[in-house]
Amino acid sequence: MELDFVARVIASIPPDPRLEVPPGDDAAVIRPPAGRRTVVTVDMLMDGVDFRLGSDCTPLQVGHKALAVSLSDLAAMAARPEVAVAAVALPRHQGDEIGRGVLDGMLALAARHGITLAGGDTNAWDGPLVVSITALGSVPPGAAWRRDGAHAGDLLVVSGACGGSLLGRHLAVTPRIDEALAVAAAFEVHAAIDVSDGLSLDLSRMMLASGTGAILDLAAVPIHPDAVIMAARDADRLAPLDHALGDGEDFELLLAMPAAEALRLAAAPVAGTRFTVIGEVTSGSGLSVRQADGTTAALAPRGYEHAFDG
Amino acid sequence: MELDFVARVIASIPPDPRLEVPPGDDAAVIRPPAGRRTVVTVDMLMDGVDFRLGSDCTPLQVGHKALAVSLSDLAAMAARPEVAVAAVALPRHQGDEIGRGVLDGMLALAARHGITLAGGDTNAWDGPLVVSITALGSVPPGAAWRRDGAHAGDLLVVSGACGGSLLGRHLAVTPRIDEALAVAAAFEVHAAIDVSDGLSLDLSRMMLASGTGAILDLAAVPIHPDAVIMAARDADRLAPLDHALGDGEDFELLLAMPAAEALRLAAAPVAGTRFTVIGEVTSGSGLSVRQADGTTAALAPRGYEHAFDG
Repeated sequence: MELDFVARVIASIPPDPRLEVPPGDDAAVIRPPAGRRTVVTVDMLMDGVDFRLGSDCTPLQVGHKALAVSLSDLAAMAARPEVAVAAVALPRHQGDEIGRGVLDGMLALAARHGITLAGGDTNAWDGPLVVSITALGSVPPGAAWRRDGAHAGDLLVVSGACGGSLLGRHLAVTPRIDEALAVAAAFEVHAAIDVSDGLSLDLSRMMLASGTGAILDLAAVPIHPDAVIMAARDADRLAPLDHALGDGEDFELLLAMPAAEALRLAAAPVAGTRFTVIGEVTSGSGLSVRQADGTTAALAPRGYEHAFDG
Repeated sequence: MELDFVARVIASIPPDPRLEVPPGDDAAVIRPPAGRRTVVTVDMLMDGVDFRLGSDCTPLQVGHKALAVSLSDLAAMAARPEVAVAAVALPRHQGDEIGRGVLDGMLALAARHGITLAGGDTNAWDGPLVVSITALGSVPPGAAWRRDGAHAGDLLVVSGACGGSLLGRHLAVTPRIDEALAVAAAFEVHAAIDVSDGLSLDLSRMMLASGTGAILDLAAVPIHPDAVIMAARDADRLAPLDHALGDGEDFELLLAMPAAEALRLAAAPVAGTRFTVIGEVTSGSGLSVRQADGTTAALAPRGYEHAFDG
């Protein structure tokens, strides 16, 4: 039942000096870090869309993913994670066990990134599991990475490798928090976005926001081994590169940086993660690709979009 | 579709000087008001539990309620509303129309209380409508009302009147923001909670948190006319007072205050709302009631609790 569950949740959250009023009241009261901006992002994950409880994942993995995707948004702003609140709609059957698993998944990741769970809302219903996390981070004034700051002549850099996330990384999301904070401290970044819906789709969003276009060097795009495995299994004969460009849920950082900065970043791993130059920002608009032989062609962005009608 | 919808949402939100990075990026960046704490609360509303879309309410009413219940939590902390973010799971059929209605309901209430919509997450699925709002407010250090500060000898005060909210007030929620800010500016308040799940249940929560008990003067409890109507219709023969004590979704303020302050508050309406002394905080624990004839009896708290199993 809700009241028992909430009491146990509150008891399991370590105290945190950032909270003037801890979880359990009508709202949490946070001491915002002096001289910093507050960064806020919300994500909602639904059973059957973002995960399939039971058939391919556990409540623990759902809790991990729900917080991780919000942390990935904070990383894309170069924000330091501070506080999160969580709302859940639990199925009535086994709701307690599911809720406990979701919570444990969140708390483990929260501890790893120094974020404290400040509050929540626990509900039950006859529908599938829904989890919504709002994460708050902080950043110095004017220092947040935006997606609208790319300039013609910038190079495009991506962390890690893309494609094939459905083989498991879409659940075991590694938010690039450490990488983002390390890059922000040592490099000039003009624009940033996290690759949630597809490398080419998220790149097109950054370009649209910046009023620029982009040329991708297809031979340079880092293809994850999972993309190769998925391509080999594919009934629809997508190449590994297609998976890298369109699968999404990679939760890698995509950055636009002055050329010299990009080359310096690509020279050595940051926080253990390699960054790769994959293309260039251009004046104009839209995406194009440069093949290994130097010829170019237009690229239609591909990725995940929620479908609904009018 | 999601991208069109989000673009139209962003275009419909008025610019706000509190936002360093406006909606549309990976996260919003907020300039927190200098020298104030950040108050954060989250609520999730689900079709079939918190509202019944189509049969008894419109998307506009859902949007209103979703923001209003979070604002009620801010009111219960004496916090000034600042910023909200919203996550929705839209049904695929008519998702665009439903989403637009929910948004418009939120925006109208947001404008009334000076809160800006800073970001969101738009999803679609085959399930019912789910809306989750996280509201951020601000309050001076140490000034947030908590539920654990009631002292023996305090008087209990409630705003407005309770009971029968299902006749319509559970949708047309009026968050007591103006009242809370006016009371906080002029009165000493030891503890506060909003009546969301039932006057007696929420009172019992405040008493449990404070390590105190309470005696309610039954004759003093302000009974809403809707409670009288519901009692007259009732198959289960609950009295109007039972509705006032247990229905919930009144979203009134319940305060514990030093006796002189409580009497002063009850003497005249604040922000157009009457406050009523309904009982007294005692040492000990649990709730009891004093009948009109002066006899007392134990009271079992009643109200809404989300039911789920292990």
